[in-house]
Amino acid sequence: MAPTVEGGDAALLPEFPRGPLDAYRARASFSWKELALFTEGEDMLRFKKTIFSALENDPLFARSPGADLSLEKYRELNFLRCKRIFEYDFLSVEDMFKSPLKVPALIQCLGMYDSSLAAKYLLHTLVFGSAVYSSGSERHLTYIQKIFSMEIFGCFALTELSHGSNTKAIRTTAHYDPATKEFIIHSPDFEAAKFWVGNMGKTATHAVVFAKLHVPGDQCHGLHPFIVQIRDPKTLLPMPGVMVGDMGKKLGQNGLDNGFAMFHKVRVPRQSLLNRMGDVTPEGTYVSPFKDVRQRFGVSLGGLSSGRVSILSLAVVNLKLAIAIALRFSATRRQFGPTQEEEIAVLEYPMQQCRLLPYLAAAYALDHFSKSLFLDLVELQRGHASGDCSARQAELGREIHALASAGKPLASWTAQQGIQECREACGGHGYLAMNRLGVLRDDNDPNCTYEGDNNVLLQQTSNYLLGLLAHRVQDGACFRSPLKSVDFLDAYPSILDQKFEVSSVADCLDSAVALAAYKWLVCYLLRETYQKLNQEKRSGSSDFEARNNCQVSHGRPLALAFLELTVVQRFHEHVHQPCVPPSLRAVLGRLSALYALWSLSRHAALLYRAERRRSCPGRRDRSS
Amino acid sequence: MAPTVEGGDAALLPEFPRGPLDAYRARASFSWKELALFTEGEDMLRFKKTIFSALENDPLFARSPGADLSLEKYRELNFLRCKRIFEYDFLSVEDMFKSPLKVPALIQCLGMYDSSLAAKYLLHTLVFGSAVYSSGSERHLTYIQKIFSMEIFGCFALTELSHGSNTKAIRTTAHYDPATKEFIIHSPDFEAAKFWVGNMGKTATHAVVFAKLHVPGDQCHGLHPFIVQIRDPKTLLPMPGVMVGDMGKKLGQNGLDNGFAMFHKVRVPRQSLLNRMGDVTPEGTYVSPFKDVRQRFGVSLGGLSSGRVSILSLAVVNLKLAIAIALRFSATRRQFGPTQEEEIAVLEYPMQQCRLLPYLAAAYALDHFSKSLFLDLVELQRGHASGDCSARQAELGREIHALASAGKPLASWTAQQGIQECREACGGHGYLAMNRLGVLRDDNDPNCTYEGDNNVLLQQTSNYLLGLLAHRVQDGACFRSPLKSVDFLDAYPSILDQKFEVSSVADCLDSAVALAAYKWLVCYLLRETYQKLNQEKRSGSSDFEARNNCQVSHGRPLALAFLELTVVQRFHEHVHQPCVPPSLRAVLGRLSALYALWSLSRHAALLYRAERRRSCPGRRDRSS
Repeated sequence: MAPTVEGGDAALLPEFPRGPLDAYRARASFSWKELALFTEGEDMLRFKKTIFSALENDPLFARSPGADLSLEKYRELNFLRCKRIFEYDFLSVEDMFKSPLKVPALIQCLGMYDSSLAAKYLLHTLVFGSAVYSSGSERHLTYIQKIFSMEIFGCFALTELSHGSNTKAIRTTAHYDPATKEFIIHSPDFEAAKFWVGNMGKTATHAVVFAKLHVPGDQCHGLHPFIVQIRDPKTLLPMPGVMVGDMGKKLGQNGLDNGFAMFHKVRVPRQSLLNRMGDVTPEGTYVSPFKDVRQRFGVSLGGLSSGRVSILSLAVVNLKLAIAIALRFSATRRQFGPTQEEEIAVLEYPMQQCRLLPYLAAAYALDHFSKSLFLDLVELQRGHASGDCSARQAELGREIHALASAGKPLASWTAQQGIQECREACGGHGYLAMNRLGVLRDDNDPNCTYEGDNNVLLQQTSNYLLGLLAHRVQDGACFRSPLKSVDFLDAYPSILDQKFEVSSVADCLDSAVALAAYKWLVCYLLRETYQKLNQEKRSGSSDFEARNNCQVSHGRPLALAFLELTVVQRFHEHVHQPCVPPSLRAVLGRLSALYALWSLSRHAALLYRAERRRSCPGRRDRSS
Repeated sequence: MAPTVEGGDAALLPEFPRGPLDAYRARASFSWKELALFTEGEDMLRFKKTIFSALENDPLFARSPGADLSLEKYRELNFLRCKRIFEYDFLSVEDMFKSPLKVPALIQCLGMYDSSLAAKYLLHTLVFGSAVYSSGSERHLTYIQKIFSMEIFGCFALTELSHGSNTKAIRTTAHYDPATKEFIIHSPDFEAAKFWVGNMGKTATHAVVFAKLHVPGDQCHGLHPFIVQIRDPKTLLPMPGVMVGDMGKKLGQNGLDNGFAMFHKVRVPRQSLLNRMGDVTPEGTYVSPFKDVRQRFGVSLGGLSSGRVSILSLAVVNLKLAIAIALRFSATRRQFGPTQEEEIAVLEYPMQQCRLLPYLAAAYALDHFSKSLFLDLVELQRGHASGDCSARQAELGREIHALASAGKPLASWTAQQGIQECREACGGHGYLAMNRLGVLRDDNDPNCTYEGDNNVLLQQTSNYLLGLLAHRVQDGACFRSPLKSVDFLDAYPSILDQKFEVSSVADCLDSAVALAAYKWLVCYLLRETYQKLNQEKRSGSSDFEARNNCQVSHGRPLALAFLELTVVQRFHEHVHQPCVPPSLRAVLGRLSALYALWSLSRHAALLYRAERRRSCPGRRDRSS
């Protein structure tokens, strides 16, 4: 176990080395140490410092930025580093329960070092390990200890070559053979090959494989997870019947070995079924505590929220790194000036400020959202673990699913756009590999795609909101959710009557103003989307067509605006708590207002259009 | 020399191989062969096919997509390929004069194969070679022949570590020593090192080095270009006093060796000065046909337009490649569908169409703009070559400078955003290196930065328009330019009184509608920017501050809207020519309308806001 960092503030937050940034730092209106303590808390700062110090002092983690590392060498290094992280044992199980935020903090620290390492570690522990733990039963507990000692190394094999988002169309099969008490795992053709599976390419010895479960009589009980050994842990040679390989070079995250696998009638013991949601008796009878396939499916994929929340936090890490690099460069790079002789730092240009500072604010707002959503998720998981079957628990699951399904897109896109802006804002120097902006962009990119394509996921959130409105219209139900993110909608007719009554620019510098506008916008978009959907259906579209025809113009902006509102709301509340040190209130308030106004400004056309419709209610805008 | 492609249409445009795209191709409303012939012309199609056939049949150009090539190996391969392109001698000098569009066509073909190759070839011939030819005199003609036989290999060294955009702050010096009749090229410190110079890292033997020319008495005559030998062509070892090296790994274009160089009192003969704009007599007297430093400087940097036009066309190549990959994938990838059993191609989803089809239209519109601007540039260069000193020639130079300075940003950003959208629209498959979208993005990225950062360049275009308006306001001058791109502004007060009077969506499907709106928008932005600038100055800002304070909110959108209008105008005229085959009119008209409306829609907030101000003229919008 790594030694923890002892000592007072000076050891925890030492002064920056002297350098060209001193002049800007001296001009700060607040103490950065105070801000760090408020944002992270001393215990968390100490935890992160312990991790960073361990990596800094370990030659295995020596960085060679911009190095020309071969694919093989990089993958090997990343595996060795992942193993070493387990040896350091930064986080005990007790600590995990006591301070759950240390789990994402550890992943974020690894992500700050290298996305491939964070992904490799996360996939083995939180994805593979959690799947075994949460979908399995007592008979699978032996695996858990082997996972943490890295005796076995795992991956999570759901996606196939032909199907990712559409999980219901997954085609790998698992037929039960009562004669030998085994399941026969089989890939019917190459389009059913498991595909893109992280850790599968070179290193995984075991996989949680999702396959359609059939019992004798050929009755199919839908997708179930099985734990399948795919390689010999000693030789890493594939097991008989398993064809497994590496996907090859990717745009980024090349330390991670993504792989594919096909199964040719691979026999696994009956106990390989991770049987929490359904089991097969030795004789071949299917039994399940859940009533129907749909409900079982929901439970088995419930874990996806946790994946999305992790991705959200990794996207925030990428944004943080990029914005720090770009701002520091901008504060030292001088170009042009008021006279031929005097050049000024590029950060002094309004253009550079407008390009970069909103992303700094976004990093703070999204970082806070990511932590708060993780704590919500912990509450949900504790409910699951304690067997909570209440309506509230189910509602909580739906709400978190809706927040995570739009939160991952918002964070990954903000990071994508922010990194690109940082890259360009650093000019040619931003194009040099050792300055890391390219790596960050390439490593962030899959955050937009995996665990559900961003555009597809946003539909989950707009569907959630539309469902609530339908429930209200049809049954008179209130808008109420456990985390209260939708409660404001209850007042939606009166919110829509409100007008923007701020009379000066200075008044806008409180995020409460943008918040009120956001509430109006979400109410407006929700009503418009609902009307558009019903109009589509009335004109003969199927439900499938109607939703597709509404998504671009209505559902997508609805989901994004709702999530932005939630992020703004949570950050606004956070920075206006009574416990905020007085010396930080001004700077935090500005960050909150900047993020809120900047986000809102991207909906400016919608706001103007909506106002126009209100002032001329008989006149429908031609663009609709 | 490569054999040219003979035979009729069948050889020139063979049928596509049968495959999963057949169904879509069969549904096309037009003949793709007819469209290809209209867009390119038979002669150009034949020329491109000659190039592609040569590369296809030459093992040196065998592609290994997604291969894990080391930096050294890639750079070596790229150099050998560049050399081979010279051996093929695709384009004779006569052909170049007869069909100037074959010059960018050759570069585009190389860019389609690999951006690094296009860049390497372009930098040696059109940047280094053109600089020697256009800035030098008869005594430098010996270099030209050596450039085309690749006896020497060149680079263009303007940018320094500390200064790129601000060329006036370049600090390398060239002191003339009459005793030895030599110039002494010197880098005063490491911040004055030549930096980022393409071809300099490993392969260039000669450089055009920009340095401040001093004659005895230490009088400085400003930046001048010198041809300096930096390496021994046989051993590639640096010449005495030259410290030259490679910049290392970049985000992309890694086949290109960007380098740095410092000169320690390197002596070169007096004749090394490329002396078109100024010369030094053997005794050390400076003589120039130009009156002042400012005018000389303008002439010496006049060549930048040609660089920007080349970059514009390379950005279009990247966009074309990406959109073709993403559309073909979308037409074959099936996911979800109206029923569980039936899946539909993702291209059928309105979301996928909205994400991709505007970029298809943009590729056509920008491709046409890129060619037409290149022909304008040829006209300008022919004027220069024939010694045209007319006011029209000077005006043409300024107009092309303004169009290229916004055209490069528009094209490079459209490509950047389009490739990113294509990457995401292909989901996980888009993240695999062999599918090339990542390489395209990484290779396109420097187009946003080099030859002037996009945001900095846009200021040139807004300054051009503001200058014309000031000229009108102060002297009553008309808006007239040789290429007529600003002529419509002459009617600007009456344009601003026009209203959008289209009454149906169908009417909007003619790019004339968007064109009219664009003209209104540019007039509006020009007036607002001019007013804002004067307001800033009246309130005490210096010219420098006033321009900086206007650029984000006014100058930048003005420059972009003006350029988009020009692109839309030229494409609109192109597809409405009488010579357009009747069977292509519908599809070309749709492409033109789609690009125009999509581009315009990004200014929707501005259009709404402007309308609001018009309806309540007394009420200034609070956001301003």
